[in-house]
Amino acid sequence: MENESALIRPGERVDFLLKGGMRIIQHPGRFRFGMDAVLLADFAPASKEKRVLDLGTGTGIIPLLLLGWGKASRVDGLEIQEDLADMARRSAVLNKFESGINILTGDLRRAEEYLPKNTYEAVVCNPPYLPVRAGALNKNASVAASKLEIYCTVEDVVSVSSRMLRSRGRLCLVYKPERFARLAELLYTCGLIPRRLRWVHSRAGEKAELVLIEAEKGGKDGLTVLPPLIVYDEKGEYTAEMQGIYNQRQYCSTFSP
Amino acid sequence: MENESALIRPGERVDFLLKGGMRIIQHPGRFRFGMDAVLLADFAPASKEKRVLDLGTGTGIIPLLLLGWGKASRVDGLEIQEDLADMARRSAVLNKFESGINILTGDLRRAEEYLPKNTYEAVVCNPPYLPVRAGALNKNASVAASKLEIYCTVEDVVSVSSRMLRSRGRLCLVYKPERFARLAELLYTCGLIPRRLRWVHSRAGEKAELVLIEAEKGGKDGLTVLPPLIVYDEKGEYTAEMQGIYNQRQYCSTFSP
Repeated sequence: MENESALIRPGERVDFLLKGGMRIIQHPGRFRFGMDAVLLADFAPASKEKRVLDLGTGTGIIPLLLLGWGKASRVDGLEIQEDLADMARRSAVLNKFESGINILTGDLRRAEEYLPKNTYEAVVCNPPYLPVRAGALNKNASVAASKLEIYCTVEDVVSVSSRMLRSRGRLCLVYKPERFARLAELLYTCGLIPRRLRWVHSRAGEKAELVLIEAEKGGKDGLTVLPPLIVYDEKGEYTAEMQGIYNQRQYCSTFSP
Repeated sequence: MENESALIRPGERVDFLLKGGMRIIQHPGRFRFGMDAVLLADFAPASKEKRVLDLGTGTGIIPLLLLGWGKASRVDGLEIQEDLADMARRSAVLNKFESGINILTGDLRRAEEYLPKNTYEAVVCNPPYLPVRAGALNKNASVAASKLEIYCTVEDVVSVSSRMLRSRGRLCLVYKPERFARLAELLYTCGLIPRRLRWVHSRAGEKAELVLIEAEKGGKDGLTVLPPLIVYDEKGEYTAEMQGIYNQRQYCSTFSP
């Protein structure tokens, strides 16, 4: 326990991820993961043999979930913000995932300088959704970088993914419907053929708020559009499916070292 | 009534479209309209002032519904099969829509030889969904042409639509999800930016079977993904929404002249 306490820095907290029993180190004043990353980890296809790359891993939520849920055996996470990468590295140790999770500090646009090209069976990314011009900069630079295309654009993500994936490897993204048409065109142009889509609606009868996309490098046409995922029921509570994906898998609490 | 009977040829039948009270001449042995066309007419934006082009109009179901429902004041329908075009022309007379519906026999790939370019506020099309290689030819050539890309490909439809629409005009299509990714890329490349999507699922919890797409010529990014349309409930009966769109608007019966 003393060893574990040494992994936590002042001001940080530990959140518990219920299913799998993982713990994640986060800082209340810095970027913390949201629902979108959990939905993406759930959507990503499972394969114990997979070697996965997470572009912009933040505090490492996606590597932790993929390993903890048994969906991958090795995840490389690339993160440009050193303090977030450092938290992700310590969370890997906290969960005894050192051999399965490899966190690098670096610019995802130059991923092939740090990591092997044409190699990954899957690339996952929860990219910023908005062009920088779309909003005033969030005063918190760490949070702003997760929302706005400051360090990378979606074009960068698609381009680097197509270089890092092996042939027939899969890119899984979570994105906003508003920009989906442009993304679909980008994917297609880069030889990443959309194969699975799932639209996420806050409530039945409302427009979609998110989309989950799987595209195959060098794949053939043949898209499957899954049943929509509805987040809240008429009472404003999580639907049974969301409870299965999210609530029952994840429970946040605070740990003060 | 004798005048009306003169519009019907031996072997043909008249189907009644309940809402709006329209009637349509069809032949049991030739191509007849299906649910997809009705969903497309429902999805198309309404504007009494609209001048609309229907590419591959068949027996003219979409022009009849758009005029009968008050969604357009003038629809030009282009159809390559003369016997279908002839039925569509007589249905327009039967419904006293001669001044609003103009049916031309011709190849949609050469639409600009018959009709004015850069003019239409909306183009609608229920194109064939399958490449010719995908299936053996249906023995009924008229039915085969509605399903297989014999007379035109989806590339042809997108290309000619981009030439016929005026700036900011809208193309509305119904299509199969399996080939949606390629279609999205085609639309984007031709400057037709997807603006509205609606996925059609046979049942809740099943993958999508159809997609309704609206794209804007020279539009900006900003896609809205509408709530999904579910066709059947758990009992296998039309959902309330489908009854509203389809059953209550359309009732088929036979008329023997």
